[in-house]
Amino acid sequence: MVYQTLHTLEELDNNDSLAGFRDRFNLPDDDNIIYLDGNSLGPLPVSVPQRMKEAIENEWGRSLVRGWNDAGWIDLPSCAASKIARLVGAPEHSVVVCDSTSVNLFKVLAAALSLRPERKVILTDVANFPTDLYVADGLATLLGQGYEIKPVAFEQLESAIDDTVAAFMLTEVDYRTGRKHDMAAMTAHAHANGALAIWDLAHSAGAFPVDLTGANADFAIGCGYKYLNGGPGAPAFLFVADKHISAITPAIAGWMGHAEPFAFKPNFVPATGIARMTAGTPPILSLTALDAALDAFDGVDLSQLQEKSQQLCDCFIDEVEANCKELELVTPRDASIRGSQVSFRHPDGYAIVQALIERGVIGDFRAPDIMRFGFAPLYLRFADIGRAAHEIADIIKTGSWDQTRFKTKSKVT
Amino acid sequence: MVYQTLHTLEELDNNDSLAGFRDRFNLPDDDNIIYLDGNSLGPLPVSVPQRMKEAIENEWGRSLVRGWNDAGWIDLPSCAASKIARLVGAPEHSVVVCDSTSVNLFKVLAAALSLRPERKVILTDVANFPTDLYVADGLATLLGQGYEIKPVAFEQLESAIDDTVAAFMLTEVDYRTGRKHDMAAMTAHAHANGALAIWDLAHSAGAFPVDLTGANADFAIGCGYKYLNGGPGAPAFLFVADKHISAITPAIAGWMGHAEPFAFKPNFVPATGIARMTAGTPPILSLTALDAALDAFDGVDLSQLQEKSQQLCDCFIDEVEANCKELELVTPRDASIRGSQVSFRHPDGYAIVQALIERGVIGDFRAPDIMRFGFAPLYLRFADIGRAAHEIADIIKTGSWDQTRFKTKSKVT
Repeated sequence: MVYQTLHTLEELDNNDSLAGFRDRFNLPDDDNIIYLDGNSLGPLPVSVPQRMKEAIENEWGRSLVRGWNDAGWIDLPSCAASKIARLVGAPEHSVVVCDSTSVNLFKVLAAALSLRPERKVILTDVANFPTDLYVADGLATLLGQGYEIKPVAFEQLESAIDDTVAAFMLTEVDYRTGRKHDMAAMTAHAHANGALAIWDLAHSAGAFPVDLTGANADFAIGCGYKYLNGGPGAPAFLFVADKHISAITPAIAGWMGHAEPFAFKPNFVPATGIARMTAGTPPILSLTALDAALDAFDGVDLSQLQEKSQQLCDCFIDEVEANCKELELVTPRDASIRGSQVSFRHPDGYAIVQALIERGVIGDFRAPDIMRFGFAPLYLRFADIGRAAHEIADIIKTGSWDQTRFKTKSKVT
Repeated sequence: MVYQTLHTLEELDNNDSLAGFRDRFNLPDDDNIIYLDGNSLGPLPVSVPQRMKEAIENEWGRSLVRGWNDAGWIDLPSCAASKIARLVGAPEHSVVVCDSTSVNLFKVLAAALSLRPERKVILTDVANFPTDLYVADGLATLLGQGYEIKPVAFEQLESAIDDTVAAFMLTEVDYRTGRKHDMAAMTAHAHANGALAIWDLAHSAGAFPVDLTGANADFAIGCGYKYLNGGPGAPAFLFVADKHISAITPAIAGWMGHAEPFAFKPNFVPATGIARMTAGTPPILSLTALDAALDAFDGVDLSQLQEKSQQLCDCFIDEVEANCKELELVTPRDASIRGSQVSFRHPDGYAIVQALIERGVIGDFRAPDIMRFGFAPLYLRFADIGRAAHEIADIIKTGSWDQTRFKTKSKVT
């Protein structure tokens, strides 16, 4: 793609078939904010406040405990999941919403290991999202008996799949570099070697279409609060392929996953389908927000989502590189191996990101030197990309960042 | 206590030092509802709706990802926990709010087993809350190596604690009968036999004062949505005694429990204190509702909470028994071995509870024949008890319940 002037970016906006979806979000426009951090926390969809008022004041306040039936709380985990299923290319009955991403990863890892009892290794990318490494290592420690996590470099993943590997777990899109794994190829390679494939879709779902069924994935988990815009700490989702669901017993067995959740029987009998992977009572208010937020994807053509995601990233790379030679592109230039984010490296990256935020362009920073920008196709405009790139270039050119503030502060992915 | 007339119940209300706290709840008064199911789901505190509007529209909507710092989301697990600590007699630094009760039970069970590696048995009451049995059995199955759950009758618990028992887990108040264990005595007996004590406070916290420190408890978990009124599926709490916290590694290790949660380091290093027992990102909206709800306990004298809880139960037993010989009391008459609930047995219990609900008296039913009524001291009046008892007696006397509806429907504890 060639360098885009602000004028042609506006033309791209005028021809953007997803432009109208921006109205489904309650963005703080009056602050002149350009929000490139939807990969940390998606913005507030307009459908959420009224739905939450109803859930709090009427469903909880007036229906009280009867809300489980009258307000349909009991169906929310599957209701929200059915909206996510389309986005990740899975049958509705294979997805459920519950718990946090970490807890769900623990559950699917335990399930995968139980399916390959003679194998003791969980293979992963050494650069995988740290909490995924923690969860896998914690499970291996808990199980003992020789279980271990084996983190290897991205390039060595394929060759490391041998007959000791029970499963690999990979985040489809690297949270720092934005590099995307080839889900179908990696999964096929794992299967050819007798291993199972676990995919973390935290940085995928809602940003571009995922095809779990087409990739023949065994398990997947993902986050409700990034590109799905479900609100801070929104419950996570969990996918199990049909071929496995009957063979696995949940490691965390709770009443929601029981075949008869209201019978109060002393012995656990797992529900027949994906519901067995739920555990305790879900946080209904947070789940209601997620369920309402997912309606922002109603009617979205996923191929258009894909195309705009790639265009936004391409434009951003072009605009920044054309105006600002000081930054090193970390993200693959090739859209086919890239998620919906672009990262640049600079020694003063933290201070530059802070200066950008002060100008209303919200991206984020990952140690030691990565400036990270996420591109959510439903609410970003091409003109936003132009202005963000312009602000970056201006800050760099004028040296207007404060190096004394170059230290890592608390921040949540 | 002698039989109370409606007149003397009203006098009890006039002299009730907790009467003013009823104004802290948004009860559906206009429907003439008497809510005796706060042990399933507490009602909406008046502080919640405005706080949630602020959290959704300003914190999420306008601060976006900056809300983690600017709105203090990162501190919510400890902030809410500090309000619960007083109610359960624990130091603030020993309690944290996170995940569901089931997931937290899984975590403390795994921790307890790791402290007694030579012992393989989790002892429990056969009548314990079913999901607690499921969680323990699920963990034992996951661990293999001879781990097992051993459920015995209430009366045999003490004698069953031998040198195979790593820990017992008990719900302080039985969800069906309302019978209360002697926490201090059972814990001392366990310790004398080298076992650890895990207490589920789901039916205790917020109904009457608990003294975890005085009882020398090792671990405890509890529910945010019953007597703590945190909203449907509110996050749960978790307590670990000081003497254990440094010795345990969390089975579910997530970024929130890391010593440096924002450093994105590849290896898990547990936080120094109770924070290590958190895992993934908490559901901030549900957690905000719980945090706001807990303010309803501000300034409550816990000895008055205790006294009123006992009086409400005594009055209810007296009123029902005086007017209605057909019901069999299941709950201990002795307040010292009783929680804040009263249960009666009747073969048509389910249909009678439905008839009661139609008259505005909301209790609930547990198979096969138990009618269960919870008494929350902060918002119930003695006059409510009189009216509820009157409606029960009238339904029984006039036979005005529909036996054709005698079947168990879905209901959540």
